[in-house]
Amino acid sequence: CVALFIINCLINKIRRHNPAFTPPNPNPAQDPSMSTGKILVAQGGGPTAVINQSLVGVALEARRFGQIGHIYGALHGIRGILGEHLIDLGKESLATLKAVACTPSSALGSVRKKPSSEDCVRIFEVLRKRDVRFFFYIGGNDSAETVWIISEEAKKADFGMRCFHIPKTIDNDLRENDHTPGYGSAAKFVACAVSGIDLDNRALPGVHISVIMGRHAGFLTAASALARRSSDDGPHLIYLPERPFHMDSFLADVKSVYERLGRCVIAVSEGIADADGTAIAAKFSKEVDSHGNVQLSGTGALGDLLSNEIKAKTGISRVRSDTFGYLQRSFPGVVSATDAREAAAVGTFAVKSAVRAHMDASVAIRRKPGRTYKVCYECVPLRNVAKETRHMPDAFINKTANDVTAAFIEYAAPIVGSLPPTGRFRGVRV
Amino acid sequence: CVALFIINCLINKIRRHNPAFTPPNPNPAQDPSMSTGKILVAQGGGPTAVINQSLVGVALEARRFGQIGHIYGALHGIRGILGEHLIDLGKESLATLKAVACTPSSALGSVRKKPSSEDCVRIFEVLRKRDVRFFFYIGGNDSAETVWIISEEAKKADFGMRCFHIPKTIDNDLRENDHTPGYGSAAKFVACAVSGIDLDNRALPGVHISVIMGRHAGFLTAASALARRSSDDGPHLIYLPERPFHMDSFLADVKSVYERLGRCVIAVSEGIADADGTAIAAKFSKEVDSHGNVQLSGTGALGDLLSNEIKAKTGISRVRSDTFGYLQRSFPGVVSATDAREAAAVGTFAVKSAVRAHMDASVAIRRKPGRTYKVCYECVPLRNVAKETRHMPDAFINKTANDVTAAFIEYAAPIVGSLPPTGRFRGVRV
Repeated sequence: CVALFIINCLINKIRRHNPAFTPPNPNPAQDPSMSTGKILVAQGGGPTAVINQSLVGVALEARRFGQIGHIYGALHGIRGILGEHLIDLGKESLATLKAVACTPSSALGSVRKKPSSEDCVRIFEVLRKRDVRFFFYIGGNDSAETVWIISEEAKKADFGMRCFHIPKTIDNDLRENDHTPGYGSAAKFVACAVSGIDLDNRALPGVHISVIMGRHAGFLTAASALARRSSDDGPHLIYLPERPFHMDSFLADVKSVYERLGRCVIAVSEGIADADGTAIAAKFSKEVDSHGNVQLSGTGALGDLLSNEIKAKTGISRVRSDTFGYLQRSFPGVVSATDAREAAAVGTFAVKSAVRAHMDASVAIRRKPGRTYKVCYECVPLRNVAKETRHMPDAFINKTANDVTAAFIEYAAPIVGSLPPTGRFRGVRV
Repeated sequence: CVALFIINCLINKIRRHNPAFTPPNPNPAQDPSMSTGKILVAQGGGPTAVINQSLVGVALEARRFGQIGHIYGALHGIRGILGEHLIDLGKESLATLKAVACTPSSALGSVRKKPSSEDCVRIFEVLRKRDVRFFFYIGGNDSAETVWIISEEAKKADFGMRCFHIPKTIDNDLRENDHTPGYGSAAKFVACAVSGIDLDNRALPGVHISVIMGRHAGFLTAASALARRSSDDGPHLIYLPERPFHMDSFLADVKSVYERLGRCVIAVSEGIADADGTAIAAKFSKEVDSHGNVQLSGTGALGDLLSNEIKAKTGISRVRSDTFGYLQRSFPGVVSATDAREAAAVGTFAVKSAVRAHMDASVAIRRKPGRTYKVCYECVPLRNVAKETRHMPDAFINKTANDVTAAFIEYAAPIVGSLPPTGRFRGVRV
């Protein structure tokens, strides 16, 4: 049959692109040991380049289980549940699902909202009406907290629903995880960008500062180190939120590199903080979201502040800064293949686990020991992932707190994958 | 012979990647009607993603002519000639040349320097000593001015040397050219970035401002329009330096889009100026280069200024800005295939023309009339390209001065090529 042929072609295409996908079961089995009911999936927090891989992973895996009647998507996270803005993901074609999986940013829309007890009452009312018995929320530590709150409130309200958190964050700061979906692609963008900036800075020398996302964790800023191919390649200095930022030692570092190489490429986390723990960038912004986070992105203030300090105190005149901002989390086409594959896998794993589980959980990525890069997926308690963040381990930061170590490169390289090749002249002098 | 086999493989590889390349002639012919001497090539101004395609185009084409003894590259433009910092490009392997061609930013280094009469005396002294009779300078309108000055001074000094300007600029503002090498790739970066930002803004609605390079010409900012695929896709507003920027109408435009869609994605040129012609961003920077240009890039000031105005005057709270800065001109891997091909072609065309020409010139790209996109290359007088810039034609800008027209899309689309595909749910409501 032509339709079946087309569907099979599509499935094969999806598989080629994403081996973690399993095709929908034409005769879904009713396993009496499994929970039954409808699925609701939503997305929270900042988008990533591969968050839709997880979403489509959930949607496709759910089709394989007979006891899952419908797959609903809530628009803009829990706000969509509160307002009953739901769409039927079962009505989307495989071609659409495939295209959405490869599209950056959250296809269902996102939200930054922490549910109150009253919100939960309303949420259960909506979900009960639709017979939703599986709730999947794709997001970072704030979204994990949301799932935890809903899970606890559901128990209190005696509303039988499996609540699963599916990890994503470009910050890579979720506890329990070796790394998180979204990080690899954002890290690839950062490494590519800094590699290009370094080549640019080599052509027109001066000081360049890249301000990179990462509120409390320096993983994304650290990924700029993957841009290095030769010993004199930038970034020459890397500053992370895990170490107190001292303006004096920063200026001394810059001066020293500039005197040695005649130029200096710097990667700085937006979250760098002084010895008291006050973020340098936070001094310039008053905006906070409902989770209590100060706005650090979407402004060039930190880069300008550091540039002006260098100009004023070192006498170097050509100083530029670029704040990568939203480009680093949703740039189409700059995706780590490993990241895309794992993002889909956490979605499918969540569904597989939820239908068999007797507790709510968060899916975590663990790295298997050994020389070859391999991961596995596990269910961990929601409270272990919720709210709190993970920081760069000490082994990843050098002693002078202005660079990463070889151990970090070894950790990050397989997650990010290869960068576009570049070349350089031998440069035989006449 | 194994060596020949390897060389042929390399040539075929280069050809596949870049059909404009012609292989080195194993038995270069001495045509007595052609000029003879050594070649010197250099790069000036801001780097682009494909400027090395032109450089390698020159180097490979030069190898085909027997009367060209050596191919020298000057490091950091005319500063490299003044300081005799020259490298021998004849000593670079085909593999290196190929790798360099695909590497963004100026492989020889760049400079922003206008030569004085004394500089020219020194330049001719260095070039005479090395028997250089062909001078190729790859750059924008300032570099064309440099070539023009050197050409005029050479005539006065009776120094027989062919001076050729090879076009490049992401700003696309060179006169005589339909478009310039470097523009297509930077435009692709801008369109990709704004496409990602629009998807991000759809997920977490608010106002987003992208500040895009372009001192006097809005071509690069206009390219953001290529990000649109559906009628409600951003950018919803585009502001170009070709029209006076009025803060009041800007705020009214933003408010109107926000009320209609609940969000607003804006592309703004760094060069937007008020009715008196003063650049809005220039008010925040005092730095000027030796061509008299004010620093507009490498600072987030314009984006922050516009964000703050929107927050203060419209009551919209979630307003973000990203200044694309140096990312848009040297991001590895985001390259328009057409742009790369044409960049190599202007290099080879320059060499072909120079050995036969009896006048100094600039190479220009002309578009052939007809429905299918085709270009040809011509030699034009240096003074026609030097110093002055080209602006967006009126037909490319809409009447309300806040968007581009369909004519612009038709013009830019073949230069930029296709963007990574994205998908969206049908979104059948439950």
